[in-house]
Amino acid sequence: MTTPLILHPDRLFPSDPGQRDIARRLYGAVADLPIISPHGHTDPAWFADNAPFGNAAELLLHPDHYIFRMLYSQGVPLKALGIGNPSANPRESWRLFAQHYHLFRGTPTRMWMDWVFAEVFGFDEQFDAATSDHYYDRITDALGADAFRPRALFDRFGIEVIATTESPLDTLNHHAAIRTANQSGEWSGRVITAYRPDPVVDPEFEGFGDNLRRFSELSGEDAFSYPGYLAAHRNRRAFFAEMGATSTDHGHPTAATADLSDAEAEALFARVTGDHVSAADAELFRAHMLTVMAGMSLDDGLVMQIHPGSFRNHNPGLFVRHGRDKGADIPMRTDYVHALRPLLARYGNEAGLTIILFTLDETSYARELAPLAGHYPALRLGPAWWFHDSPEGMRRFRAQVTETAGFYNTVGFNDDTRAFLSIPARHDVARRIDCGFLAGLVAEHRMEEWEAAELAADLACNLARKAYRL
Amino acid sequence: MTTPLILHPDRLFPSDPGQRDIARRLYGAVADLPIISPHGHTDPAWFADNAPFGNAAELLLHPDHYIFRMLYSQGVPLKALGIGNPSANPRESWRLFAQHYHLFRGTPTRMWMDWVFAEVFGFDEQFDAATSDHYYDRITDALGADAFRPRALFDRFGIEVIATTESPLDTLNHHAAIRTANQSGEWSGRVITAYRPDPVVDPEFEGFGDNLRRFSELSGEDAFSYPGYLAAHRNRRAFFAEMGATSTDHGHPTAATADLSDAEAEALFARVTGDHVSAADAELFRAHMLTVMAGMSLDDGLVMQIHPGSFRNHNPGLFVRHGRDKGADIPMRTDYVHALRPLLARYGNEAGLTIILFTLDETSYARELAPLAGHYPALRLGPAWWFHDSPEGMRRFRAQVTETAGFYNTVGFNDDTRAFLSIPARHDVARRIDCGFLAGLVAEHRMEEWEAAELAADLACNLARKAYRL
Amino acid sequence: MTTPLILHPDRLFPSDPGQRDIARRLYGAVADLPIISPHGHTDPAWFADNAPFGNAAELLLHPDHYIFRMLYSQGVPLKALGIGNPSANPRESWRLFAQHYHLFRGTPTRMWMDWVFAEVFGFDEQFDAATSDHYYDRITDALGADAFRPRALFDRFGIEVIATTESPLDTLNHHAAIRTANQSGEWSGRVITAYRPDPVVDPEFEGFGDNLRRFSELSGEDAFSYPGYLAAHRNRRAFFAEMGATSTDHGHPTAATADLSDAEAEALFARVTGDHVSAADAELFRAHMLTVMAGMSLDDGLVMQIHPGSFRNHNPGLFVRHGRDKGADIPMRTDYVHALRPLLARYGNEAGLTIILFTLDETSYARELAPLAGHYPALRLGPAWWFHDSPEGMRRFRAQVTETAGFYNTVGFNDDTRAFLSIPARHDVARRIDCGFLAGLVAEHRMEEWEAAELAADLACNLARKAYRL
Repeated sequence: MTTPLILHPDRLFPSDPGQRDIARRLYGAVADLPIISPHGHTDPAWFADNAPFGNAAELLLHPDHYIFRMLYSQGVPLKALGIGNPSANPRESWRLFAQHYHLFRGTPTRMWMDWVFAEVFGFDEQFDAATSDHYYDRITDALGADAFRPRALFDRFGIEVIATTESPLDTLNHHAAIRTANQSGEWSGRVITAYRPDPVVDPEFEGFGDNLRRFSELSGEDAFSYPGYLAAHRNRRAFFAEMGATSTDHGHPTAATADLSDAEAEALFARVTGDHVSAADAELFRAHMLTVMAGMSLDDGLVMQIHPGSFRNHNPGLFVRHGRDKGADIPMRTDYVHALRPLLARYGNEAGLTIILFTLDETSYARELAPLAGHYPALRLGPAWWFHDSPEGMRRFRAQVTETAGFYNTVGFNDDTRAFLSIPARHDVARRIDCGFLAGLVAEHRMEEWEAAELAADLACNLARKAYRL
Repeated sequence: MTTPLILHPDRLFPSDPGQRDIARRLYGAVADLPIISPHGHTDPAWFADNAPFGNAAELLLHPDHYIFRMLYSQGVPLKALGIGNPSANPRESWRLFAQHYHLFRGTPTRMWMDWVFAEVFGFDEQFDAATSDHYYDRITDALGADAFRPRALFDRFGIEVIATTESPLDTLNHHAAIRTANQSGEWSGRVITAYRPDPVVDPEFEGFGDNLRRFSELSGEDAFSYPGYLAAHRNRRAFFAEMGATSTDHGHPTAATADLSDAEAEALFARVTGDHVSAADAELFRAHMLTVMAGMSLDDGLVMQIHPGSFRNHNPGLFVRHGRDKGADIPMRTDYVHALRPLLARYGNEAGLTIILFTLDETSYARELAPLAGHYPALRLGPAWWFHDSPEGMRRFRAQVTETAGFYNTVGFNDDTRAFLSIPARHDVARRIDCGFLAGLVAEHRMEEWEAAELAADLACNLARKAYRL
Repeated sequence: MTTPLILHPDRLFPSDPGQRDIARRLYGAVADLPIISPHGHTDPAWFADNAPFGNAAELLLHPDHYIFRMLYSQGVPLKALGIGNPSANPRESWRLFAQHYHLFRGTPTRMWMDWVFAEVFGFDEQFDAATSDHYYDRITDALGADAFRPRALFDRFGIEVIATTESPLDTLNHHAAIRTANQSGEWSGRVITAYRPDPVVDPEFEGFGDNLRRFSELSGEDAFSYPGYLAAHRNRRAFFAEMGATSTDHGHPTAATADLSDAEAEALFARVTGDHVSAADAELFRAHMLTVMAGMSLDDGLVMQIHPGSFRNHNPGLFVRHGRDKGADIPMRTDYVHALRPLLARYGNEAGLTIILFTLDETSYARELAPLAGHYPALRLGPAWWFHDSPEGMRRFRAQVTETAGFYNTVGFNDDTRAFLSIPARHDVARRIDCGFLAGLVAEHRMEEWEAAELAADLACNLARKAYRL
């Protein structure tokens, strides 16, 4: 016996009838606004090549660490799921997902996947062990059709613009191909890149030395001298901007910043490009480079994003067997108030600069981030991130940030995902939660409804357009 | 004039009518399920000897640090309450409690005690100065009756199994007596022990050297050599398991773990069993032993519980006058992400091992514990603990944990108490709050009601049975 | 077109109809109780001289760092607002405020200002660019009238007592003038001082040496010898108490306390009054002095307030241009459990002493502050402070503190403001939020309504009167 799959029109709205009515009205006016996706990890090759996606497991299970980390936590081996194991039978892997789908009750993954199942593929019965094969076949079949190719889905999803994230070592040839398609009139989808220099900024990044060699080649600068290294950044940033980038992104372990003199920086650069790099030097170099990058952003107008606080690859055994990004990154306590001070002392008062801060440590919302963003002209707060990109996570973000930083020091929603099919679901969750939060303020007579309506549209689209200069 | 004492049938349910209706239905189906109490501090002598409890003050006031810490905080001397003062008049101590009962408004103690007063003793007017003597007499009288002896209450409360907590130095003779009573058919109550080795694992524990001597005697091993010390643990663990234990419990100041080589461990053991133990060595030994204990758990199947983060005996003057466990333990900020890594690197991927983590630092719920438990197969999260074993504490736990770890990486409720009469009240609060939380998810259309009903039963009983292997 | 300005009678009450009805009843009984303002920063000169306030910008914009920090965060230059710029046109500055008033949506400033506009000045259309000049003129005109002079507003606001905050270096001549007016029957308003010794306790305070010189003069003691320094404190505390003070206030960077021997303290005093003061010595001296001050409080009965955890003057460029208190103080993570132990070990068990703790780090509410205040007789918890003096901030405070510390270890509300006109609005927000919180407990049957009614009055007035000995 199967159970019906229903996406209730009032889902995620407050259940208090007064609040719900307001939320419905607010949401009704923003539900169909275009999707602005200024930060994410979709693969530009999809939109460049427009090749069909593969089977259900390949598209929906293998790349989604939210899914397989939960299955793994309950004893399902990654190999059986086909992670790092091309010989696994995808239909069998999919069955394991189906058998354990109840694990996702109460998680955002459940809401995102149900949306994908119902809205993208038209299922009307719940995903479980009994329906697993039916799901597998119907999804895999659908993916062969033109309507399910990347560009068709992009158009169907109402995406106005999407940003991908590339390293300075990327040639951006996929983005070039997309621009050619744009210019020829073949496809009008706007796909831009973002400059993520961690591989050439973090001396502890795998292959840092090789990365600098490649950085030199691509930029035509000598990235092994400090002036050449800075010039290489300027060169690649300009190329990224030419290819549509409006932002940079920095994924450091901490939010530490430093502002070294040229002589100090040059000496440090010599040490971190030498044979033995100490952890302290690596941290100091990353810290200094955040300030340098802020200075370049002031010059070239790229918006700067800082995403700190993840302990990467916490599980060493898993890392050896499966590598990066396998659900084993764990948030850490993160200080901002001391860490950001060198950068802010130098550039924080620049109204022409935009730095967007993210956190995995919710304790910093009310204590540090909202007070900082409610003061420094250069700062804005990114949305609830990663583990906190969830209904309760978003509510905590708004409840803890708004009273000190207001709404206008935030930047709307980021989907931050490589799970392309879930992007509309993620934006929809954010819009529903924001409308519910605003409805609460209206129902408690803390704001007029016309103000909430204005804010609902700002949070859905306008703030992202403005903050990311889109 | 007295005021009526009413336990409202809807207490603790969300007041939103839609949510309340769902909560009522969910709760109705789990209210009378048996009590599984896998972690607590009742005295096994009660169930072995089945002697009557004493007077009202002795049973309900003297052992309950939740109660006397609040009275003390408002200037009531502990001696006047009969704490460490056998010459205090228990009726007078009870009157002090009654006069200050308003202090507990808004606290879980108020809800637990009102339940005990109404349900166990049948009172229908509130406890206060005017009713103090009436309460004292009626409770004290009742305790003389057979129906109020420990085994009768155990049966009346619907307890399926209760775990007590003993040190490896305990002979478990009370548990042996209970098993004899079980086998003879005299009483069928299931009372098991849990292995809490802090007195022989923590070099800073009072009498550590004497404890090791006793540990040697009981185990027949030389606990002053490192191999003998490990063998003594294995020996006592096996004995505890024979006496019903399914778990161990570790109450360390921090969550630090270490994974030393045998040579390092042996050298460290020599230092901590020597004359002068440094704080760093004591911490490192506790840390190392957590990893050793995890390894033994993998071998013998005992579930491992880690309860870190309490600054014990914060009030030195009180400690000198009254000793341990007098309400002066204060939670500390606690790191898990770095602290647990050595243990997890060694054993975290073992699906056959279960480690249950507790915290007194709620900031770790969403930031560290849920991401860890949502990844490592060996990890589960214990319920909201101690100061957080309360309606709002439980709501924060579910709201902050569920979206990343789901429900199935949690283990149901622990009452964790020596206040025997309040055990059903504590489980009832947990069931009401969990049903209310689930009702909120259903009312916001984030889950179907049939799923919530399944979860309500899992949270009430099934998860505890499974996680604790009961 | 203008939009109406409406202060809804149900504002800030829970929107659930059951809870709202209870909240209305609770609030109805406390709405008009007198204002007890035991901690704040109004200027005693206002009440001594009773001179008319200036124009709208001067009264409402220039002194309110909540307002101008938000405007500054969105790129409005402080100079254009007239901050540190007497030549700015106040009407133009006011227009900038009006044009950006939407930034305050969802913030407490919006609620406070709307109350001031509607209740103090009688506006019935919203403040925005279109109404800016109308607002400016009408407010500025009104301020010239006798009914808007400080004493008339004080009486109109129903203030029973207000405390200002002065340094030991203040001669308290304004307070003396007010007492003369009280004694002559000219005015009956009760304005008291509070002893804030940071300028002579913090060796890093600007002009510490000069401050000690002045301290010596005013006290007639040699404040450059340690015994004379202590005597000077006793002398000035006695003088402050004579002028009505019932409390002291200590605004340290951290909550560190120390309890040095006399010899250690004397040696440390010599170092911090010497030429080069190390940061560690400065911190240790502040820490030691908190314990000394607690001892003096035990002697002279002044209630002690500790306000730690602000990183003062985070923005160095702004500090150079504009000085202190310009919205650039940022909260820091703050430890209490270790930091307060030396002081508590010495004086924590004194029921005759009252120490009121505040925090900017909400993570300490449930983890540290409520457990500490729920145990030590000397401790009480101050209300949600500064950035957390807001509807959501107050709700988090009650939700996280009450279950462990109850209501009676808290002290009612502090407005803590120099924005005189907003004081009634701030107390009104606190009363509404507290009544809403209590209504939630009643609606969930966790408390009877008559108990909530008693508590509502306690939270509005009685606890503040009692804790501050007013």
